[in-house]
Amino acid sequence: MPELSNASLERILRNAGAERVSAGAVETMAETMEEYGLKLSKEAVELAKHAGRKTVKKEDVKLAARRLGQI
Amino acid sequence: MPELSNASLERILRNAGAERVSAGAVETMAETMEEYGLKLSKEAVELAKHAGRKTVKKEDVKLAARRLGQI
Repeated sequence: MPELSNASLERILRNAGAERVSAGAVETMAETMEEYGLKLSKEAVELAKHAGRKTVKKEDVKLAARRLGQI
Repeated sequence: MPELSNASLERILRNAGAERVSAGAVETMAETMEEYGLKLSKEAVELAKHAGRKTVKKEDVKLAARRLGQI
């Protein structure tokens, strides 16, 4: 079930300098980014629980991103 | 300029098990995922150029994802 729109992903590719983009490239972007988003979210949920909260907050996502090797 | 919708990102967080999500968490998800998407796209554009193409294809995004340490 795709969560991210093709139009958004195509814009991100074009912002990165893509002149032309195949439909398959956009589809693979969607799969890869959703996989990354899910991984990031699972880390954030775990960190919120670790802090004794049911609400996922900004600081959980920030720390999750650091743990996945992204600032 | 945000490319990914808050509703999509909140769904991804909920798919990962989040019970409640703060507005700041969704905003930080957007920033982090867009940063990741841009990094992935830049790699894919570079790989397409390397292959002598102007069109970014599925195989460029797949190889870019591998280079960023994601399958």
